[in-house]
Amino acid sequence: MLVKPTDNIPDIVIGRLPLYLRALGRLQQEGKEVTSSHELGNRLEISSAQIRKDLSHFGGFGKQGTGYRIEYLIEKLSTVLQVNQEWMVVVVGAGNLGIAISHYRGFQDRGFRIAHLFDESPEKIGARIGEFVVKPMRKLNDIVRRESIKIAMLAVPAEHAQSVADHLVEAGVQAILNYAPINISVPPDIQVQYIDPVTHLQHMTFYLSGE
Amino acid sequence: MLVKPTDNIPDIVIGRLPLYLRALGRLQQEGKEVTSSHELGNRLEISSAQIRKDLSHFGGFGKQGTGYRIEYLIEKLSTVLQVNQEWMVVVVGAGNLGIAISHYRGFQDRGFRIAHLFDESPEKIGARIGEFVVKPMRKLNDIVRRESIKIAMLAVPAEHAQSVADHLVEAGVQAILNYAPINISVPPDIQVQYIDPVTHLQHMTFYLSGE
Repeated sequence: MLVKPTDNIPDIVIGRLPLYLRALGRLQQEGKEVTSSHELGNRLEISSAQIRKDLSHFGGFGKQGTGYRIEYLIEKLSTVLQVNQEWMVVVVGAGNLGIAISHYRGFQDRGFRIAHLFDESPEKIGARIGEFVVKPMRKLNDIVRRESIKIAMLAVPAEHAQSVADHLVEAGVQAILNYAPINISVPPDIQVQYIDPVTHLQHMTFYLSGE
Repeated sequence: MLVKPTDNIPDIVIGRLPLYLRALGRLQQEGKEVTSSHELGNRLEISSAQIRKDLSHFGGFGKQGTGYRIEYLIEKLSTVLQVNQEWMVVVVGAGNLGIAISHYRGFQDRGFRIAHLFDESPEKIGARIGEFVVKPMRKLNDIVRRESIKIAMLAVPAEHAQSVADHLVEAGVQAILNYAPINISVPPDIQVQYIDPVTHLQHMTFYLSGE
């Protein structure tokens, strides 16, 4: 039984579902057909009780004692997360990071396709980066609206992140993955997630024995 | 008063300290000298009560009603997180992502310096990437040991991530930032953090109205 997402599912639970989906995909690649909350928990270093509890928000998906059918669980989690469809994504910023993102092959089979790469620098506009030709920012609004693109990745310097985010929201983008090391402010109905490697490094150095 | 880190501080609290540090750095760049838990909270979308509680684990740092002196708080949080020193970091994987990481200028002023870039592909070894010459994996052990390097960033394909992680741990690395979209297994005293943009994208699509 698939329960429709409701707003009483904690966001921290939603945040773990992509990890489950990734681990399940890996198990499937290894040729497995069935798994258990214990096996998933070992892979992810999350307790099996937590996993069962998280999945129970959506109606379960497995019978006690028989484990989970991997294919079925992948399908159900993909539906819950709405990645049983392909989302088009724009990347803003054609520096080293934007280029690396545009070349990354790991988006496509997990629900996302990079559709356009934008930059505002005259030297970059028109350049060919892999399969993309860098488009000027002034075309962003039209393209995003015309193609109903809902998701953007922000790979611009920190000082431009807020103004580009405003521009994206204005164009109709509803979710921003921000690689700039700065918090951006957006209307409450817009999703923002952050990728900042330094925050992860600093989290780990807390635990290291000093040099 | 600075309280020494102890193991009864929840890891989730430690994980927020780099966000506080980043926001404080930004406030300082804006020319501010004093801030409050309310101002920080607004920037980070974290409640001011949470911020005060988190900081109280380390003895406070501010007086009720007068706010926090930004420079002082930066210094104290940097000390707690041990980023009042510069950590050398190796990057393994000289593909697009490893190259982007090696060019990224945001590490240096936040406690980290990329010291070496490794790859195992004969076509990449010896290539010049910015200021780095790509070194062969067979030299990793010697270099990491000789220079007492404790931190590595893993930018290799998923299928190689575990074996490279084993190699890094063997060489004495204590903290790994893993960009490969796969969970790796390491001894309990080794820190691992993950960067996987797709998990963030999938987290956000849960909330989007379908196409």
